Amino acid sequence: MSRVLDDLTHPIVLAPLGGGPATPALAAAVCEAGGLGFLAAGYRATDDVRAEIRDLRGRTASPFGVNVFVPGEPAIDLDAVRAYVGTLEPDAERLGVKLGEPTFDDDGWGAKIEMLIEERVAVASFTFGCPPAEVVRSLRDVGTEVWVTATTVEEARRARDLAVDAIVLQGTEAGGHRAMWVDDDEAENLGVLPLVRSVASEIDLPLVAAGGIGDGPALAAVLTSGARAGQLGTAFLRASEAGTSEAHRRALASDTPTALTRAFTGRQARGLLNGFMREHGREAPIGYPYVHYATAPLRVEARRRGDADNFHLWAGQAHRLALEAPAGEILLRISRDAHGAAKAVARRHGWHA
Amino acid sequence: MSRVLDDLTHPIVLAPLGGGPATPALAAAVCEAGGLGFLAAGYRATDDVRAEIRDLRGRTASPFGVNVFVPGEPAIDLDAVRAYVGTLEPDAERLGVKLGEPTFDDDGWGAKIEMLIEERVAVASFTFGCPPAEVVRSLRDVGTEVWVTATTVEEARRARDLAVDAIVLQGTEAGGHRAMWVDDDEAENLGVLPLVRSVASEIDLPLVAAGGIGDGPALAAVLTSGARAGQLGTAFLRASEAGTSEAHRRALASDTPTALTRAFTGRQARGLLNGFMREHGREAPIGYPYVHYATAPLRVEARRRGDADNFHLWAGQAHRLALEAPAGEILLRISRDAHGAAKAVARRHGWHA
Repeated sequence: MSRVLDDLTHPIVLAPLGGGPATPALAAAVCEAGGLGFLAAGYRATDDVRAEIRDLRGRTASPFGVNVFVPGEPAIDLDAVRAYVGTLEPDAERLGVKLGEPTFDDDGWGAKIEMLIEERVAVASFTFGCPPAEVVRSLRDVGTEVWVTATTVEEARRARDLAVDAIVLQGTEAGGHRAMWVDDDEAENLGVLPLVRSVASEIDLPLVAAGGIGDGPALAAVLTSGARAGQLGTAFLRASEAGTSEAHRRALASDTPTALTRAFTGRQARGLLNGFMREHGREAPIGYPYVHYATAPLRVEARRRGDADNFHLWAGQAHRLALEAPAGEILLRISRDAHGAAKAVARRHGWHA
Repeated sequence: MSRVLDDLTHPIVLAPLGGGPATPALAAAVCEAGGLGFLAAGYRATDDVRAEIRDLRGRTASPFGVNVFVPGEPAIDLDAVRAYVGTLEPDAERLGVKLGEPTFDDDGWGAKIEMLIEERVAVASFTFGCPPAEVVRSLRDVGTEVWVTATTVEEARRARDLAVDAIVLQGTEAGGHRAMWVDDDEAENLGVLPLVRSVASEIDLPLVAAGGIGDGPALAAVLTSGARAGQLGTAFLRASEAGTSEAHRRALASDTPTALTRAFTGRQARGLLNGFMREHGREAPIGYPYVHYATAPLRVEARRRGDADNFHLWAGQAHRLALEAPAGEILLRISRDAHGAAKAVARRHGWHA
């Protein structure tokens, strides 16, 4: 069971939204409106994350979560990575930047876990894998709930075996990085509904559904399917408090399709289809985090220029539905519309509680 | 509005299940249990389909649907198709068959439409495109509802502009062929929830949701999201009345992941990952129906032998949940569990109609 989920006023969890959009102001607005705010710790300095935690605590007394990337031991073909990075030179030149060094690091894993234990946040969630059993225990010992993200039934089984508090089930509809523990070409891109149902049919843990939940009726749908809450990211990308760039905000409001790509980071991620993805998506190898580091300077410069064809426009499949409003208003509207959708379907089918 | 949908006892539509599993007995069992049965007309002789319609009418007085493939004008690279078919020779030799001729035809389009107009079935549904306006009119004139399958918002808009009676929204979770009107590499693989929500937010027509709906809670979820009914295929593949082969039935009950492939037919379709898909999935070109005709003899022989690595094991992403039982029992259980899921979520969240 999850005390944090049980105590939520609205069954809405903010997605971590790494890479720019996450801000303490956004997390605070979600918390204050009765949802669960989240901060992103992936590929950020530990001290910066700690500063954001303290900033957020100054804005709300409500619980919130922090999401951490689990470093893998990736079996990467470095020659393929180098060859791929070589093909990006003309793009870098055009933008007047030097590509980064394609390197591996563990994203300051030890320091981040230590910091989270000291800070005693309400929820520590994990992406790209499951933390070791002793990390799960240490966090739970200080009262922190451990949530692990899974994209398949097998990953969910492994999370259950580690006695986590909740499982975040990320469907292929989700924007940003796919959370699969090992990124290979045979990983199944399960939609959120079959994923929730397949897991719920055999695992008795609180489930949080993520991926393509763009409005109230979609939230009501995943709750009906058995999730305790929905985790929404793209729905908040156009919120006033989000750090989303202007070019990204404009693209979200369009009919542009999304696609999965390894072009930006070497790991499958979903974004609005743009020039960089079209040009490089096919050749981009499995190569996270090497490719992430190599493309970072190029993406930073493109974002600065508002050049939407040359940085990652992470977006889930329901991006057309994202509202431009303060986050608290977005949250309350989604919750109200969820209730309305549930009432309407019960009336139509004669379902009464 | 759709009279057929309004009159259903249970909001459950059988998927057409082309290529073997569809039988008049299965469609009749679904009709008799209070759902909408369906027959598959794609790549079958018009007279055979007519015989099945009459067979089905002998088994039930309830309405049912017939699904037809819309022939495209595909821009196919025939050299790529021939090169691909060449790589299949060793497989054909191993199975002792000769590959088919990679040809194009319109699947007897004119004759099938004429037959449907004569037979006045309750619903004619279309896959891979929208029929011309005069076909839509002719069918509606004899009292047949026209349903068109869409996989994107843009396809749904075009169906609406033709004044169809309902739109079947097929999410990427669905087994068998993806219904996109043009199969190209930029077609977005929308999950069923964001697809239903994005379409419902701008199109006021009855929507039938398809893809990965494996059990009652998933059905309740798509109904809550705004669909008038769910279309379920894989959930009935293990039904006693289905024509599903034994090897296919065994594979459905396993943890095998599904994947999209063009290897069998030259059009993206979802099946249980097997040897043929692993070996040929990467090189298979866009080449429908040419590749379908080329591989047909090989697949027929592999199915006859129970060689599950060499024919198409179409399956949606919720295949693990498919029950082995008479179709009527499966349907009633799904309907009852949908009601139960809706009641449980309303109680938990204090939602009352």
